[in-house]
This record gives sequence, C-alpha cells and structure tokens, in this order.
Amino acid sequence: MLSKIQSPQDIHSCSIEELVELADEIRKRIISVLSVNGGHLASNLGIVELTLALHYVFNAPEDKFLFDVSHQTYTHKLLTGRNDRFGKIRKYKGLCGFSHPNESDYDHFYAGHAGTALSLALGMAKNRDLFDREEFVIPVIGDATLTCGMVLEALNNLPRDLKKFIVVLNDNAMSISNNVGAISNILSRIISSPLIHKFYADSDASPESQKTLACPSAFFEQYGLTYVGPIDGHDIKKLITKLTALKKLDSPCLIHVQTTKGKGMPEAMRNPITHHGAKPFNPDSGKFLPNPSLKPTFPKVFGRHILELAKKDPTLVAVTPAMSYGSCLDGLKEAFPKRCIDVGIAEPHSVTYCGGLAKNGNLNVVSSIYATFLQRALDNVFHDVCLQEIPIVFAIDRAGLSGADGPTHHGIYDISFLRSMPNMVVCQPRNGRVLKELMNEMFLWNRPTAIRYPNMITEEDGEPLVKRKLGRGEVLALGSGILIIALGHMIEEALEVHQLLADKGIPCTIFDPIFVKPLDENALDELLKTHSFILTLEEHSLQGGLGAAVNQYLIQNGHDVDQVLNKGIPDQYMQQGSRKELLKEIGLLPSQLMTEIENTVILKNKHMASL
Amino acid sequence: MLSKIQSPQDIHSCSIEELVELADEIRKRIISVLSVNGGHLASNLGIVELTLALHYVFNAPEDKFLFDVSHQTYTHKLLTGRNDRFGKIRKYKGLCGFSHPNESDYDHFYAGHAGTALSLALGMAKNRDLFDREEFVIPVIGDATLTCGMVLEALNNLPRDLKKFIVVLNDNAMSISNNVGAISNILSRIISSPLIHKFYADSDASPESQKTLACPSAFFEQYGLTYVGPIDGHDIKKLITKLTALKKLDSPCLIHVQTTKGKGMPEAMRNPITHHGAKPFNPDSGKFLPNPSLKPTFPKVFGRHILELAKKDPTLVAVTPAMSYGSCLDGLKEAFPKRCIDVGIAEPHSVTYCGGLAKNGNLNVVSSIYATFLQRALDNVFHDVCLQEIPIVFAIDRAGLSGADGPTHHGIYDISFLRSMPNMVVCQPRNGRVLKELMNEMFLWNRPTAIRYPNMITEEDGEPLVKRKLGRGEVLALGSGILIIALGHMIEEALEVHQLLADKGIPCTIFDPIFVKPLDENALDELLKTHSFILTLEEHSLQGGLGAAVNQYLIQNGHDVDQVLNKGIPDQYMQQGSRKELLKEIGLLPSQLMTEIENTVILKNKHMASL
Repeated sequence: MLSKIQSPQDIHSCSIEELVELADEIRKRIISVLSVNGGHLASNLGIVELTLALHYVFNAPEDKFLFDVSHQTYTHKLLTGRNDRFGKIRKYKGLCGFSHPNESDYDHFYAGHAGTALSLALGMAKNRDLFDREEFVIPVIGDATLTCGMVLEALNNLPRDLKKFIVVLNDNAMSISNNVGAISNILSRIISSPLIHKFYADSDASPESQKTLACPSAFFEQYGLTYVGPIDGHDIKKLITKLTALKKLDSPCLIHVQTTKGKGMPEAMRNPITHHGAKPFNPDSGKFLPNPSLKPTFPKVFGRHILELAKKDPTLVAVTPAMSYGSCLDGLKEAFPKRCIDVGIAEPHSVTYCGGLAKNGNLNVVSSIYATFLQRALDNVFHDVCLQEIPIVFAIDRAGLSGADGPTHHGIYDISFLRSMPNMVVCQPRNGRVLKELMNEMFLWNRPTAIRYPNMITEEDGEPLVKRKLGRGEVLALGSGILIIALGHMIEEALEVHQLLADKGIPCTIFDPIFVKPLDENALDELLKTHSFILTLEEHSLQGGLGAAVNQYLIQNGHDVDQVLNKGIPDQYMQQGSRKELLKEIGLLPSQLMTEIENTVILKNKHMASL
Repeated sequence: MLSKIQSPQDIHSCSIEELVELADEIRKRIISVLSVNGGHLASNLGIVELTLALHYVFNAPEDKFLFDVSHQTYTHKLLTGRNDRFGKIRKYKGLCGFSHPNESDYDHFYAGHAGTALSLALGMAKNRDLFDREEFVIPVIGDATLTCGMVLEALNNLPRDLKKFIVVLNDNAMSISNNVGAISNILSRIISSPLIHKFYADSDASPESQKTLACPSAFFEQYGLTYVGPIDGHDIKKLITKLTALKKLDSPCLIHVQTTKGKGMPEAMRNPITHHGAKPFNPDSGKFLPNPSLKPTFPKVFGRHILELAKKDPTLVAVTPAMSYGSCLDGLKEAFPKRCIDVGIAEPHSVTYCGGLAKNGNLNVVSSIYATFLQRALDNVFHDVCLQEIPIVFAIDRAGLSGADGPTHHGIYDISFLRSMPNMVVCQPRNGRVLKELMNEMFLWNRPTAIRYPNMITEEDGEPLVKRKLGRGEVLALGSGILIIALGHMIEEALEVHQLLADKGIPCTIFDPIFVKPLDENALDELLKTHSFILTLEEHSLQGGLGAAVNQYLIQNGHDVDQVLNKGIPDQYMQQGSRKELLKEIGLLPSQLMTEIENTVILKNKHMASL
C-alpha cells in the first residue's frame, strides 16, 4: 500500500482496516531503513497511528502541521511523497532526519531544537487571522517539550479567542531520558489513575466539575486551551473520531494522546532511551550491531573521566538539560545521584541554576550541554556565570559538524559568542587523552571555562597524562615556513597534511593551540619568527572561531606574514552527511588542504623565486 | 532614623510605628536622590514596606534574598550600609542601580535581566542542602517575570521536599508596560474578586477546598509551592506576621504580596509606565524636568518612522517583548493595535513567534528588542529565522554602552553571534536620518536583517533622505594615509578626530561602513590603495564586532597595511557611568584617540622619515 501513496489525499478514502494495515507497513519500512541508517527510532515508531489520523482528518498542506523538534516526522515524510527517497534518510544529499521546507510543501520549518512549534504555530495563526484565512494550525508537541520555558511563554500568549488551533500533545511519558519535574508529574498523574482515565476518555472535553488541581486538564485550561483526552495514540479509529470532533470546536484546544515509544518493536519498547537516537541494528532482534571501533568517543571519555574525578572530589556536581544519556553522564548519575542533576529540556535554567549552585565557591560545577543547545543559554552564560566570575566548567558536547543530524545540530557557532566573554577560557582537546588532562586542571584555573569536543571516536591511551597549563599550546611537529594551527580533532587532518607535505620534502609545523582563549601568544610569537605562511583549521564558523582569534592576534600585534589561510565552516548553512562528505564539500579534507597550500604558498614561493 | 542604620540588625528592635516612619523616610530619600539621578522610581517606591518586613523577619546575609532583575533593591541598599553612598547611585564609580556583590555581602548576584532569581535560588538551596546548612533562601520575584520561560523552567524543577525556601511574589500588576497573557490574568482574577480576596487574606495557606481552576493558588501549587496570600504589601504589620508564620512551614512556599508601583508619590502612581525608569524630575510635583535637547533619540526616530512606514504598508507588523515604551512602539500600538504585539518578557518566544508570523512571506515583520536581551534569543534567531531564510528585521535597541544601567545592560556582544549567521545583514546607522534610510530599504533586501542603534540623542533632519544600497558604505571625508572606519554613532567621535588631525595639517579619511555584514569590500579595496594606517572604532566588544570583520577582510584578502588599531570595548566588564566617562575609561574619547594615533602612526612615520 505504502508504495502507492503519493500524497496524504491518497489515504482519505482508506478504511480503518486499511489504515491499520498501512501503519504496520510503515513501521516495517521505518525499522528496515533505520536498521541500516540509524535515526530516531523509538519516537517514530510511537507516532505512526497519530500521524495517519492527522493526515486522514485534516487537509495538509493547507492545514498546517508543525511538528516540534520534528525528529518524529518519518511517517509524515512517508505519506507526503517521500517514500522513494526514504532509504537515504539522514544521508548526504538524502532526506533530512527532521522536517525540511526544501524537501516538501508539507514541511513548514526546519526544526531540530525542542519547544519551538507552539510559538511558530501562534505566529502562523496570527498571520492567518490577519488575512482572514481559514486553515487549521496544528502544532504537534511532545510531553518532554513542556519543560522548555519557551513553550510556557507561548502558552501564556495564547489568545483565548483563537480558532482552528489544535495542539496535539504526543505523550510518550519520556524525554530522551526519563522525564523530570512537576509538569511531567501532572501529566502522568492521570495516567496512573484508571478511574480518572476512564472519566476523561469517555468525554470529549472536560467539564468544569472534573477539574482537579494537578491534572492535565487544569494545567492546560489555565492557559485557555480546552483539554481533550487522554486518547490511546495507537487506536486509529478513536483518534480519527476525536480529531474530527475537534474540528467543530470554537476555542483553542489540546488533545492529549498517549503513545508508546518503540511501539511494534519489543527491543525498542524495552529500551526507549538507547533506541531514541538509534545506531544501526539487527532488524529482527532490534539489537545494535557491534561497534566497529574499540575506541571510545570524546563524550564517553568525558563520562568515564568525570566519574573518576567525582570519586576523588566530593564537591563535583554536574547538571544536564535532559542529555545525560547522550553526554554519557549516566555512570555519574548512578554512582552519585545527588551530584548529577537532570533538569529536563531547559537550557537557560540549567546554566543559571549552575550559577546558584557554584556561587558559594564550595562546589565544582560542570554544566554539560550540547554546543547547538548552548545557543539557548548564551545570555545565562553571560549574565549568571561570566559576569559573576563564577568558575563553572561548560562541557560542550557535539561541538563541530553534527553529521547525520544536519544544520540545526551543527555546533559551529559557540566560540563566536564565548570569546566575547571577558575572563572566559575556551579550549578544545585534540583527543581523549588531552580531554582528560584538561579535565584534571579545569577547576584549578578558577575561571568560567568551556571545554568543547565532538561526538567522534578518539584515542585516550598511549602516553601518560601530562599537566596542562592554562593558555599553553603544543607544537606537535616542528618545521619552518608553513605553520598549521589546528583546533581540537582537526589536528588529525593537520597531521595528515604534514605527512603529505613531508612526502614532497616540504617541512611544516603543526601547532595545537588547545586554547582559543587565552591564545598561546608566546608560542605564536616564537613560531612566527620562522613561519610566514599560516593555515588555521577548525570545525567552527570562520566568522568567529580560532581563525578569527589568530587573525586578531596577528593584526593587533603587527605581525607581518606573507599569507594566512583560514579554513573552517564557511559562511553558509550545511546540510547533513557523514563528516567526511561534509568536510569534502568545504575543502577541509587533507588532500584538498594540500592542494590549496600548493596552489597558494608553494606556487607563490616558486613565482617569487623565479623573479 | 535612616542615617543611623548601619545594617539590617538595626531594625530588628524597631516597633511597627518606627518601621512605618522609617518607610516614609526611605521613600523621601529615594524620591530626593532619583529626582536628580533618575532611576527605577515606581518599583522602588512600591517595595519599601516589603523590603523592611523581609529584613525585619529574616537574618540577612545568612538568609539569602535574591531580588529578581534587582532594579527594586534601593530600600535593600539603604538598609545594608549603603545610605551614605546612595546619592551617587547609577553614577560613575557610585552605587550600581542593581544588586552588585562587590558592593555588599547582602547582594549575592549582579542582576539586571528578568527571570533568573528562581533558578539561582534553587541552585543556592541545593548547595545549602548538599552541605546540610540551615539558612533560608528567599527569591523575590515580580509578577511580570512570570511570563519568562526560565521562571517556569525553574518552577518545573522545584523539589517538593525543599525546605526553607520562600518565594516572595511582589505583584504590582505591571510589567514596565501593562502585563500580558494568561498568567497575568490568573493573578489578577483573584484581585478583582473581593469575596475570594477576603477568603484568601484571612487564611494563612489555602486549603484544598478553596482551589479553583484559574487562581494563583492553583497555579503555584501545581508546581509544589504552598500558596499564601494575597497580602497588602504596604501593611508592614501584616507582612511581618505572615512572613514570621512562613518560617515554620515545612514545604516550599510562595507569598503573594500586592504592591502599588509609585506608592507615596501621586504622579508616579498615576503614570507607572513613564515613572518605571524615570528621568530626573521635580521632587515636589513628580513632573519630569524639561528635556535639555530638542533632538530626538534613535529609538524615538525608530518609533516615529515605523509608524510612518506602517501607514503606507498594511503588512508591517512589530513584535516586542515587553519593551513597547522603551522602544517607542506605543505610537504604532495605538494606531494599529493588531499590528503591534507585546508578548511580555519572553524574548525567545518573541523571536520564534516572528518566524511563524513571517513564514508566509506576506507580512513584513519587525522584531524589536534590546541588544542585551537579544542574547536570550540567539538560538531563536539562528533556528527559527536565519536557518529558515525568513527576512525578519531585528530592530536592536540599546546597542552599545548602556550608561547608568551598567554591565548587565551594555549591548556590546550581539554582533559577535549575528555575524556568524549566513546571509544575515548587520548594520548600524550613524544618525537618525540614516536610520530612516535603512528602514526604508530593510524589507527590500529580503534577508534576516539586524539594524542596531543606541539610546542616544541624534540628528534626523538636515539633508534629504537618500536610497541606501545593501552593503554600501559611505566616505564622509576623504584624505590619505590614515583611514578611520567607525560604526554607527561612533562616527561622531571619528569626525572629531578628523578635525583634530586637520588642525595639525594631517588629512585623514572617515569611512562609515554602515554595514558590518556584508562589508563594503569594494570601497575598502579602493581606500586601501591610498591608506596604510587603519583605525576601526566601535561601541562593541573587540572580540567580534566591526574590528574583527575588518581584520578578517584584511587578512583573507592579503591586504598589506602598515598598522591597524582596533578600538572598541576591550576584553573586560565595564560598570555604569555616563557614556563620556565610560569612553574615557577605555580611551575612546576623540582627544585620546588623537593621542594614540600620534603615538603610533605619526611618530612611526617621523621615525621612518628620519631613517
């Protein structure tokens, strides 16, 4: 059936039985493709029937579905003409793992960060009303997103007289990890009470008399949303009946739909956390394929080492905004539950809370956060940490290109802002060993500190750990003439270029600054005596990263060099793909860098020599 | 009495009558000083009795008061040993207009941005509990701050078993402008109902039976806060009784205190919006002193011109996060109420909402926001506007040094992040006339656009408006050798330097780039043929503003210049003061710039000539 569906109109004539069959087919397709590509497995398996019901009842793309985060849009993609390209989801030049307006008129926004759908939907509804149009606006939000402040800012701004505005609450009782906080309790309270459950399920909207203090209806109705639910999110017939009834409502409303993460795949249902963003797996058993590498990733090294540090340092506390699994803090959480705090998807609060925690000077506080999500808390970094001169350490995970997750998830803008913070330390280790070395020192510097690292395989063994001094870089290979300054894991590419140059008999120097701020100016001063061609290399926007820092240093200190090449993320948005594919697209592969060096410095020198 | 109070301990033995008298004295002191210095008048007059009662009942600084925003801490300052310095509040090297840990052990955090106190307080309480200490933690928040997402993130994370945690809700029923949204309605509902009012006022805590859907007790109790109130915030005796009773409560609680903005000064009570951040006034009448300048400010020019544009363009819509008064949007709001939307203090939502509004391409949407508050919405600028390629215009008010408001309010970091956004236009007009010219074009560029400007007096007349092209700067004076590139209002200083140099017979060129992004590279290429000393000048952090953009351009294009001086905000936090005092501190006054030019380029040239 699925292969015949070109647009959602094709399902409007289906019977319930056919829709049930289609749901089954869609699940199989998702499992089959994701077993190879990886992706947001559990949440997509949970929303199959709900998506079918939405497309059955409403008339997209005139009616607007706004999927929050939009990692759960695989069924939506399969129903909107993208089945044939679905095999390449999350692949270079393939379908995006999130909604993507350039892919389809059925997708209205790129998304990827939680909690934006309600604000966007209110904007779209306001636009509709200013022009007296009549379409439905339907934000689809998850329960975990209700911990986001922005969602509550939007709820607070919901006009009471808003029409044709239906919030779909897809409640799978999970964040990526387990939910936290009061609102989650409010939602789950009703679920755990069979009596109330029945009471609500049998009524379309909850009349005044049914309201109790801490139940979902009261929670949403205080913001002017008529509450309907909870509904079994895997019962297509009931979903269609309820959604159809809602079309006639004259007020903004919320339908509370309960779904099961991983539905239809026992292994994913049992392990919704590991199967949230799933790696390739065996489609029959659901078990992950063995990891091809024995080496750890940077986050794994971080997670293991912070546990080691916490064993020795009883004052060490870590805070995560719902990312304890991805940032490998689960070990710490298990060993020291009081000293590993998950605040839910609430990045601004998470950083400011760290400010309060660390104010006394008697705790060593780590704010663990993904680079792209740190963008939500930059004012908190400024206002509640740096300005206060509180020496919190930001462990900035997923720094650099995000690979399969695409443009919303690349962590390539953080240094631009962080470098503007007086007294801030900004550093990046080239491998797991240096990460551990930096972690050993991070609280001794007594300054707000950002340690950024990507989610990549790395080395952690080999040499004994050394003591790292604040602002001290390291020369990894000493040549002359050509100086390559590379940040973090890009040292790997730099060392390959070093080899390629060496093969041609050209010596070059590789300098790992380790610190973007403060820059190792002494080392640079020394190196600049014998080098006049400089290449800076980083996986960060060229508008404000290492290259910008080096340029500023060169100019402000009047260093006269022949040529500087800044290589990094150019001033453009990048889509998803493997790291190698993306690096190739922007000319950062060692062979490409080699060619560029040849075309500039070497040819130029030859030209000079021939004059 | 006030002059004898050295610390809050001195009021512990006061009788109620003495406290009432003291309140009167404090009010007179605040009115007297602010009539000269200006400052947050209305809110400070409203919180006198509440602050007295808090210091009477609790034992600061062991017990921790965390004033949200902290613009309302004048009484707190007067009671904590700062009366003698109060006459210099908001002045250079004087007391800060906000709380300030370097001033006093009674102040725990710098503050200035709304909505942080609850998160900080939860962090401090967690610290206390990890170390088994016993002090009270007492965040004091305003009703307007409840529209901030962060506050709701914190509420969601409030542990149910938290002890000695008392939230004081100072409800004056106002934001800077009028409140907006559902939560404000919830708070005011009870106030407008005399029966319920009495019902609650007579009970210490509200028992289960009193709860109704949309009342404050239900709102706070869903987050686990025991609700007490509302209490008349000007009745010291009752405040002391209630606060004393709360000390024995075993659960986290909130006391709802109703206060009147401007209390004790009829003119401020009648006009709480204009008297929120008051200019100097006649202490007897409360009327503002006549404005010494007939010229408008940049925000005034913006406000008047956007109204003109809106008259011609029915698709123009503006959105403000509670700053319609400060950003001069009240005219637009009055003329076109549907097209000027105040979302309350909710910066992230305000920007993402604009994304939804403008998505269709049929509206011209202006997101009006202060530079320092834009820091809260940088991810929204990235994720919901720039990445979507939606051509929203950000009218960034209060860009540059904030003057009397100090470090939390300087708008000096925005360009660092905005320049990293591909396709973004970042520009700054040197005067009101150019501001209008840019506004005339801003939607024709069809790109996310930031127009930043300070809250300063400017020119808007004189010459007829000209058409401004995207990325096109303007040579204001053509000389040779020395090229000064100055951003926005700093052109004034540049022109003065030009005159000082001319007086010595030295010609220099003044270039107004207008656009930081895209830079006018053609003009720069041309100018660099005849100039080898470059001075960049801006009121922005040197880590990521105009200077950084020019440096990057020079280096990446291999321009060989003799010397570059980047002048702007150095890598340090700056306190409050007049603009002139602050510029002097960092060497940006024309005479200082002149000296620096002499000491470098002119002396260097003489030295060169003598060789």
